[in-house]
Amino acid sequence: MNVGFIGLGNMGRGIAANLLKAGHAMVVYNRTRSHADPLAAQGARVAETPGDCCRGDVVFTMVADDAALDAVTSGENGVLAALPAGSIHVSLSTISVALSERLAQAHARAGSVYVAAPVFGRPEAAAAAKLFVVAAGPAAALARCRPLFDAIGQRTYVLGEKAFVANAVKLAGNFMLAAAVESLGEAIALVRKYGVAPDQFLDLITSSVFTAPAYKIYGSLIAAEKYQPAGFRLPLGLKDVRLALAAGEAANVPLPLASLVRDRMITALARGYEEADWSVIGKISAESAGL
Amino acid sequence: MNVGFIGLGNMGRGIAANLLKAGHAMVVYNRTRSHADPLAAQGARVAETPGDCCRGDVVFTMVADDAALDAVTSGENGVLAALPAGSIHVSLSTISVALSERLAQAHARAGSVYVAAPVFGRPEAAAAAKLFVVAAGPAAALARCRPLFDAIGQRTYVLGEKAFVANAVKLAGNFMLAAAVESLGEAIALVRKYGVAPDQFLDLITSSVFTAPAYKIYGSLIAAEKYQPAGFRLPLGLKDVRLALAAGEAANVPLPLASLVRDRMITALARGYEEADWSVIGKISAESAGL
Amino acid sequence: MNVGFIGLGNMGRGIAANLLKAGHAMVVYNRTRSHADPLAAQGARVAETPGDCCRGDVVFTMVADDAALDAVTSGENGVLAALPAGSIHVSLSTISVALSERLAQAHARAGSVYVAAPVFGRPEAAAAAKLFVVAAGPAAALARCRPLFDAIGQRTYVLGEKAFVANAVKLAGNFMLAAAVESLGEAIALVRKYGVAPDQFLDLITSSVFTAPAYKIYGSLIAAEKYQPAGFRLPLGLKDVRLALAAGEAANVPLPLASLVRDRMITALARGYEEADWSVIGKISAESAGL
Amino acid sequence: MNVGFIGLGNMGRGIAANLLKAGHAMVVYNRTRSHADPLAAQGARVAETPGDCCRGDVVFTMVADDAALDAVTSGENGVLAALPAGSIHVSLSTISVALSERLAQAHARAGSVYVAAPVFGRPEAAAAAKLFVVAAGPAAALARCRPLFDAIGQRTYVLGEKAFVANAVKLAGNFMLAAAVESLGEAIALVRKYGVAPDQFLDLITSSVFTAPAYKIYGSLIAAEKYQPAGFRLPLGLKDVRLALAAGEAANVPLPLASLVRDRMITALARGYEEADWSVIGKISAESAGL
Repeated sequence: MNVGFIGLGNMGRGIAANLLKAGHAMVVYNRTRSHADPLAAQGARVAETPGDCCRGDVVFTMVADDAALDAVTSGENGVLAALPAGSIHVSLSTISVALSERLAQAHARAGSVYVAAPVFGRPEAAAAAKLFVVAAGPAAALARCRPLFDAIGQRTYVLGEKAFVANAVKLAGNFMLAAAVESLGEAIALVRKYGVAPDQFLDLITSSVFTAPAYKIYGSLIAAEKYQPAGFRLPLGLKDVRLALAAGEAANVPLPLASLVRDRMITALARGYEEADWSVIGKISAESAGL
Repeated sequence: MNVGFIGLGNMGRGIAANLLKAGHAMVVYNRTRSHADPLAAQGARVAETPGDCCRGDVVFTMVADDAALDAVTSGENGVLAALPAGSIHVSLSTISVALSERLAQAHARAGSVYVAAPVFGRPEAAAAAKLFVVAAGPAAALARCRPLFDAIGQRTYVLGEKAFVANAVKLAGNFMLAAAVESLGEAIALVRKYGVAPDQFLDLITSSVFTAPAYKIYGSLIAAEKYQPAGFRLPLGLKDVRLALAAGEAANVPLPLASLVRDRMITALARGYEEADWSVIGKISAESAGL
Repeated sequence: MNVGFIGLGNMGRGIAANLLKAGHAMVVYNRTRSHADPLAAQGARVAETPGDCCRGDVVFTMVADDAALDAVTSGENGVLAALPAGSIHVSLSTISVALSERLAQAHARAGSVYVAAPVFGRPEAAAAAKLFVVAAGPAAALARCRPLFDAIGQRTYVLGEKAFVANAVKLAGNFMLAAAVESLGEAIALVRKYGVAPDQFLDLITSSVFTAPAYKIYGSLIAAEKYQPAGFRLPLGLKDVRLALAAGEAANVPLPLASLVRDRMITALARGYEEADWSVIGKISAESAGL
Repeated sequence: MNVGFIGLGNMGRGIAANLLKAGHAMVVYNRTRSHADPLAAQGARVAETPGDCCRGDVVFTMVADDAALDAVTSGENGVLAALPAGSIHVSLSTISVALSERLAQAHARAGSVYVAAPVFGRPEAAAAAKLFVVAAGPAAALARCRPLFDAIGQRTYVLGEKAFVANAVKLAGNFMLAAAVESLGEAIALVRKYGVAPDQFLDLITSSVFTAPAYKIYGSLIAAEKYQPAGFRLPLGLKDVRLALAAGEAANVPLPLASLVRDRMITALARGYEEADWSVIGKISAESAGL
């Protein structure tokens, strides 16, 4: 297929590379043009504007937040104006439910198709085509995108016709990850005070009741107090928790655990940990215990 | 070995049966004597008092809480008075750090040995000898107990000489389970409001980022809203979270997530869910969202 | 002076009436025109657009939220376009710090002057000219407005040149009110369970340590479980707490108590109490205790 | 009357002095005997044991916590053993609901009478006979104590026959004070970030919506960051919040705001503020905001 790709950050560059490898003709765009060089070297054409990526069958967007997605979709050189009728916009970014819904409607009015397909996985998983893809949108469009999803992830979950549902699920999942990190941070602070080495505790729980990768990955960062370089920066984590809370508020769902995590993250920002991985809230638990 | 076993509830009966099967001579005691009948049928002798269980090399206790352990260890027919010098008291119960420390000292004064060995696993795991044993105490005693631990669990973690450390770790682990349940409850309430079926969401997260048994087990209870019969009753869960908070307070470790879960559990009790599994806090999340 | 007034809701109509009484020539605007009738009967002229209110020295705005203020300030018939150079926009609404800052800049660019003057007090206080006015903006403009503030409130606090500071203070104050309501709700639920009549408890604390009006007013609503008609509707209260949280997040200030209150309010909305007074969170405390 | 008084700390010494001034014959006891010297100089007899204070009509106890009250009431030289049939034990301390109930039963068995009369007010109020007395117990006993209460406080609230109800109300009140302190701490941290001087904000809110002494007293401590010397030490404040939570748990009343305050106080202890006034949680709010 002819595929466009907008947004070549930590996640996007790996995903785009896997689409290239799968044999698709690619046009890529990134605000900072030099980030596109490696993909150009692999055969992608580099576009000058987001709209220039939109001449084919499908265009992917993978950007940091609502504002960034707004910037590449709106305006005369934006995705909405440029995408041909019948072509598909696959939105991979973790964005608000509200923006996802607005974009679905805008594409429908423009004659193009909007699919939400946020992904679970950190940059290494993106590079290894091991992402989990959570997709929702019109069934025919999802079917056309299936080979593309297969090229970037290990499994695709389809959640029906309403694109924003995929975003709600992604936000719920990220909230759960943040909650797991918070519980790790508090538990490790507790056992440290009783003389247990963090990695001993971590080995114990991740080989018994918490065998999930999330606990191993984040637990080892907290146990080692190694919060930099960040796999997923704190401000992005806070953004996701804030979006989960907003999705909750819009649907009258209180999320007290998300509120707790949000306050921890803001505390971490206030303490100057902006460049750290979002698991740095484990450090806040330690500091609050006088460690 | 000659082994005594005190406390034949949901967990204790499975553990005691596995010790019997491993070929040890057993004397068992339970406050409600009839609960001992199945073990008697398998060859155990039934004692009239806790002290009567303490004539051998090792006595296990597996009771509901601090008060129950106090009741079987103190007094003239209690474990402390009856256990011979050099024999070992293996305390499997989930109890407070403070009581564990007091018992270790009391046994030392009496010439006997105290080992804390709380376990992770629900009744089915106890019956299947699949528990995870978290043991701490004098090294020689732990070595002598090793075959006994091997008979009841799939793995034993040794945490050093101070018995109470094992209890702190067990409480930290149970707190983390409660936190996972709370995050499941909130996330499921959120996605339900956006039209996602709970089991679809659960399948998605437990096959991607949350592959741990804890998420599968508790997630399926919440998704199915099946809180009875209880695998682990709410008041016992509340007790564990309260003990984690007490351990935190004693060591100046704030545990805001444990506080949140405690408040949820009290709300569930106030709503009349005393007989439900502790995962019923997922129902509180649903009710708080108007579901 | 020649004064315009936009927004004749519960609060605005009382304030506008007091300005009229003080002898100022008034032009008023309200989206639902009929709400302007009583003021027309008292001598005010009724405008067709927000801009029509902006021909004089000062225009007041008193609307529900950021979106409503945006609606009356922007566009060709909005305040920003219509207000003559040198005239003053006095913004009484409880709005976000961010919008206040944007409006100050926009007015500066347009040659007009922006003053933020949010008020403390419920509708009865507005009608009785007993409000507390929290004002910030250019000193000369504040001096010119002084007689107007004196006509609507019992005291004016001046907070310097930066208009948004007044909004931050107003949001902090409203957050504190919400916190007081939450503490009343929890405390009353507690003593009820011990057999104390709510009004007896309330009489005790409001005549000893909590003599402030806030405790008397909201305490009596909770004690009497009389949440309707609403003096201040729940969704507006939630808006204010959300804005306080947003102001906190923008400045890296975690506000866990505000988060707690927000979750309570969302729970109340989910339970169907949208039309109730914001003190209805006291009912959530009672319900959570099984009362 | 012949009056005994046990516990001459910050609060007790002022109260005892006022009883002396009112003309009652006094016997006083304090664990550290030298604290009794000033009262001896005013005419009180100094007892060697708690029981020696119990020969008259009424004995007051005013000690730090449950353990201290247990120590002076139990044993052969304790209040329970020594107090003559028909004499009254007036328990002024802030203790648990549970201990209050146990003492009421123990006195009833012993033929003596137990009255709970916890007080609101800091040491200066105790010295000035300006306390608020919250009394409950048998009506006849309360009537006999009335002149004593009038000698130490500005007002007495009578809450019926069940002594422990007075303790529940006292704990609810102290919880509300702690909540007010927390809200002050968060609000002041917020406005400081927007450039508002704490005392300016405090003047504003305490002269408008929060005119209660509690806000003035604690607000000025937080605004001035003057947490020492402590009027009420942090560990005692934590004790009271913990007792409120325990009272809540015993009656199935979740108190999330009390949980939040408890976590703040533990954080403050972990940071080394054990000797500070309990309002030092305002410092935790500031530190969490990077101030």
